[in-house]
Amino acid sequence: MSGTDRSRPDAAAGEDGSLVVVLVEPQLPENIGMVARAMLNCGLDRLRLVRPRETWPNDKAVAAASGADRVLDKARLYPSTAAAVTDLHFVCATTARPRYMTKQVLTPRSAASEMRARAAAGQSVGVVFGREASGLDNDDIALAQAIVTVPLNPGFSSLNLGMAVLLLGYEWFTSSAAVAPTELMMPEETRPATQAELHGFYEHIEGELDQCGFLRNIAKRPSMVRNLRNLFGRASLTQQEVRTLRGIVTCLVEARHAKR
Amino acid sequence: MSGTDRSRPDAAAGEDGSLVVVLVEPQLPENIGMVARAMLNCGLDRLRLVRPRETWPNDKAVAAASGADRVLDKARLYPSTAAAVTDLHFVCATTARPRYMTKQVLTPRSAASEMRARAAAGQSVGVVFGREASGLDNDDIALAQAIVTVPLNPGFSSLNLGMAVLLLGYEWFTSSAAVAPTELMMPEETRPATQAELHGFYEHIEGELDQCGFLRNIAKRPSMVRNLRNLFGRASLTQQEVRTLRGIVTCLVEARHAKR
Repeated sequence: MSGTDRSRPDAAAGEDGSLVVVLVEPQLPENIGMVARAMLNCGLDRLRLVRPRETWPNDKAVAAASGADRVLDKARLYPSTAAAVTDLHFVCATTARPRYMTKQVLTPRSAASEMRARAAAGQSVGVVFGREASGLDNDDIALAQAIVTVPLNPGFSSLNLGMAVLLLGYEWFTSSAAVAPTELMMPEETRPATQAELHGFYEHIEGELDQCGFLRNIAKRPSMVRNLRNLFGRASLTQQEVRTLRGIVTCLVEARHAKR
Repeated sequence: MSGTDRSRPDAAAGEDGSLVVVLVEPQLPENIGMVARAMLNCGLDRLRLVRPRETWPNDKAVAAASGADRVLDKARLYPSTAAAVTDLHFVCATTARPRYMTKQVLTPRSAASEMRARAAAGQSVGVVFGREASGLDNDDIALAQAIVTVPLNPGFSSLNLGMAVLLLGYEWFTSSAAVAPTELMMPEETRPATQAELHGFYEHIEGELDQCGFLRNIAKRPSMVRNLRNLFGRASLTQQEVRTLRGIVTCLVEARHAKR
């Protein structure tokens, strides 16, 4: 089920310009069903599942979807969070907990507004939701351009997956593309980088940093890599800028090789 | 449990100025529990039940409340919708279906705004939700000052009781001025980089890019430098990240010098 369209990600992503919902390792099929129900209430039907714990398709999910079967029928499976977002231009990660990273934190409303504006400009946008028990891990979050936190009662914050998707979907549905709180001005000849392009750059620079010894501390390597991805992920890089950054890394490194 | 405070309704209603949630003839105790959970997430704890179908208190409700026990413990029983709203100054009735009556129809957002303003002026406000299967009847609706309709997908409108209460509660909660739309989250031990630190990094990397030949095209150099500064300038770099980036450039370059 996964990957049939991943060879032509832009076609898949652009199918209707609506929000993509990604669930990372959902544990209970009932929750996937409730997410589908919440989504269709909000006019959304593009569901992506990263390694669901139970078999898929799943009858318990269908029962919980209360008629939102077509969301489940269209759902695609992915082997990793990175694979599930690879064709998207702007990705939000939902998390209630502050993490030790520097990242923009949006409310569902400002996230919806931002994503609407980007979708109106032809970009593919998505929101990633974590496991029921443990949420998203830092590597998942590092893949996102921004964090969405639902600003509810700090004394009792207990939204289940369906409720969280509902609030995001509701804000998406009720937001209009007309008003953007921020706008990314961009030369006409370029476009935002896809996540695949970003990941290609990450792997390139990380490979070179392994070579030169910058990432030699094995214990610290994962957090250093995350920090680096967060830093570049925040910059809303264009395709051209990703190419420039890769050129910079190559130039510095080739000069080194030329000396050999 | 019902009515202990009904002899002094104003004292009960004015206890904290927050929104009252009224469920009319809820059928499943699980749904009452999910409503309690949704409410407490939104900082609400004033639940009123009109003739619940099953016995009350109810363990199934407690299980579904996921820890929002105090909402259930405080819940009050009423013999009629009229009795449940008698002390309120402004009552909204939720219904998805247009009825043959002349009444103001609000979205959850405009209802929240209206109710906040009234609560701030000392009024008691509440929202009435109908039976799972059949919603509110016309007599219930006639008791309300306004109707609230959730503006979702007209092709699939299937909110359960917990979801409907969540959306109203969410709008109530976020209509307080305290919720900022965006915020830059950052680890406590760091701070945003100063412009001086940014400029130091720019000069450092540009110097190295002159060395390795990346900026050798004199005509294009100014715009390339500008683009690079724009790219990093957008990322809201922290002091620590600027140090990391300088470390990366140095590492790549020192490996080169070591070969000489």
